[in-house]
Amino acid sequence: MTNVNAYAALQADKPLEGYSLERREPGETDVEIEIEYCGVCHSDIHTARNEWGGTKYPVVPGHEIVGYVTRVGSKVTKFKKGDTVGVGCFVDSCGDCSNCQDHQEQYCEKGSSQTYNSYLQDKKTPTYGGYATHIVVTENFVLNISDKLPLHAVAPLLCAGITTYSPLKHWGIKNGDKVAVVGLGGLGHMAVKIAAAMGAEVTMLSRSKEKEKDADALGAHHFELTTKPENMKKMANTFNYIIDTVSAKHDYNEYLTLLRTNGVMVLLGVPPEPAPVHAGRLIFGRKSLVGSLVGGIKETQEMLDFCARHNIVSEVEMIKMEQINDAYERTISGDVRYRFVIDMKSLKNNVN
Amino acid sequence: MTNVNAYAALQADKPLEGYSLERREPGETDVEIEIEYCGVCHSDIHTARNEWGGTKYPVVPGHEIVGYVTRVGSKVTKFKKGDTVGVGCFVDSCGDCSNCQDHQEQYCEKGSSQTYNSYLQDKKTPTYGGYATHIVVTENFVLNISDKLPLHAVAPLLCAGITTYSPLKHWGIKNGDKVAVVGLGGLGHMAVKIAAAMGAEVTMLSRSKEKEKDADALGAHHFELTTKPENMKKMANTFNYIIDTVSAKHDYNEYLTLLRTNGVMVLLGVPPEPAPVHAGRLIFGRKSLVGSLVGGIKETQEMLDFCARHNIVSEVEMIKMEQINDAYERTISGDVRYRFVIDMKSLKNNVN
Repeated sequence: MTNVNAYAALQADKPLEGYSLERREPGETDVEIEIEYCGVCHSDIHTARNEWGGTKYPVVPGHEIVGYVTRVGSKVTKFKKGDTVGVGCFVDSCGDCSNCQDHQEQYCEKGSSQTYNSYLQDKKTPTYGGYATHIVVTENFVLNISDKLPLHAVAPLLCAGITTYSPLKHWGIKNGDKVAVVGLGGLGHMAVKIAAAMGAEVTMLSRSKEKEKDADALGAHHFELTTKPENMKKMANTFNYIIDTVSAKHDYNEYLTLLRTNGVMVLLGVPPEPAPVHAGRLIFGRKSLVGSLVGGIKETQEMLDFCARHNIVSEVEMIKMEQINDAYERTISGDVRYRFVIDMKSLKNNVN
Repeated sequence: MTNVNAYAALQADKPLEGYSLERREPGETDVEIEIEYCGVCHSDIHTARNEWGGTKYPVVPGHEIVGYVTRVGSKVTKFKKGDTVGVGCFVDSCGDCSNCQDHQEQYCEKGSSQTYNSYLQDKKTPTYGGYATHIVVTENFVLNISDKLPLHAVAPLLCAGITTYSPLKHWGIKNGDKVAVVGLGGLGHMAVKIAAAMGAEVTMLSRSKEKEKDADALGAHHFELTTKPENMKKMANTFNYIIDTVSAKHDYNEYLTLLRTNGVMVLLGVPPEPAPVHAGRLIFGRKSLVGSLVGGIKETQEMLDFCARHNIVSEVEMIKMEQINDAYERTISGDVRYRFVIDMKSLKNNVN
């Protein structure tokens, strides 16, 4: 075992603080990674504060991890010391069930091992995430990262990137499709970039006029205020896809009206309460309301390669590890464009 | 113009009564049909009683029409006198929009001409349905019916049949797929027959033990009471598809739980109020909640041919035209196995 510096939440109502974490010695198929950067996902906050229930303390959040390989096990074939790599939301899965066989580890029928607040496949060894100087992960769950892109801005691709790429790919977005993105945050800004790179005509739907300039800079072709009824009326039966990234309470029906025949509205956020859906909104026009969770490992690699080809990274604001509690507050209030990323050098130099 | 015997609702709160209807002389592309049988769809009742709003009186309901060709226009190429034919929910559409070009006339962007309580494409000539001795329809909206099947039991295929066939086909049901059908009525009993004929393993989900024998006779492989929590738990993550035919208020979320990863729940009924949907139920497992409306003309012909090949007809109870008001009451209380069909001879012999 190796002791490494980390940051942990020790209980739901306390700020995160410095923590000394034990990482296992790399086994035969393991890769040890020195973490350079880790993105700050809203899930980190929900988990640290036990807002979804089920948090097991101490919790070390972080599942948007990038860094360099420091050691590899004797049977590792895909990576070598010095490689630039990433780790996303999962660090293992059963490998046997039909979903794992189908490269959809995120839906592992026996339960995947999430990167933090979860267990390894022995169902007893807890997992700890990327707010740490190092992590050890079995090679099949380690991603290859191109050196072409600025590494710190790649980190959020491991969750926000794949979460938006996967449904666009799965539901068959084509060149020229009209795609609306609802909500311009960590997920929304990646949805705009990726959909545009896939050749879609992208419309940013927002309640706030202030977002227009950013939407434009991110590559959205159009910007429409959803607060104006005449805008909503004008857009009726317009979009092939709507990517809904909002996790606050909102009305699905008014967005379903904007879909064309056979249109698909993808939910990525979980509002606090179930939202009423009018069956007629789906029936008249054979529309689909669907959900999507992150993406599998093979698809995550495909997404990273796609982003490298298209020069896509996340828009980030760098912070030091000790700024994490302030960053959580700012994330909650939407005061970030569009993802905080922790520079792990700040943790390495700041031994508890 | 030809005067024909019909039955009409003259206002929302009055019983249907005998009515003399003018049908146009067949134009160049028209087919005149002597109606032998007409199914009684729940939509007929909603419309006759103005329960959806927008009913224009007098209304002659009926869109599950079968009979024989009596006359054809000079340019009709697909039909000749004596042919056995059917007419479903639509009698025309614009023909130009992308949905019409794609053989999805039911989603015509300019508005299809429904068989009753609608207008022809001139947007001013009212349409009157199948509770009548004759109907005149442009040949592209007339379906060919095999003489192999008992004609009276074919009638409900024109709405209940295609409404269940279309989503099963569109969402790619495969041999061996596990399909659950919710609600055993006019739609549900066709869903069971058609899904089973497509090779699916069909489970009837019901709140009433009494339906088990019928479900079995219709070809369902399993029957499960949804009122028992242990049954619902046992069926979690089981089905590839759920065909939900219920239009009463019910909880979508408990059914979504029964879907496997990538499963699809198809809504065919419109409950009186929007039903709450928990986004997490869709996200965890990449599930889809979708709607579907009837089917296009090409697909309706395909369905009729499929049913002829597989010896599928509807389970019907024959009535005379003058029994229609009683049949409406019995349909509302679920006291029909599983579709009333009007024998139009009763109308022909009973001149008002």
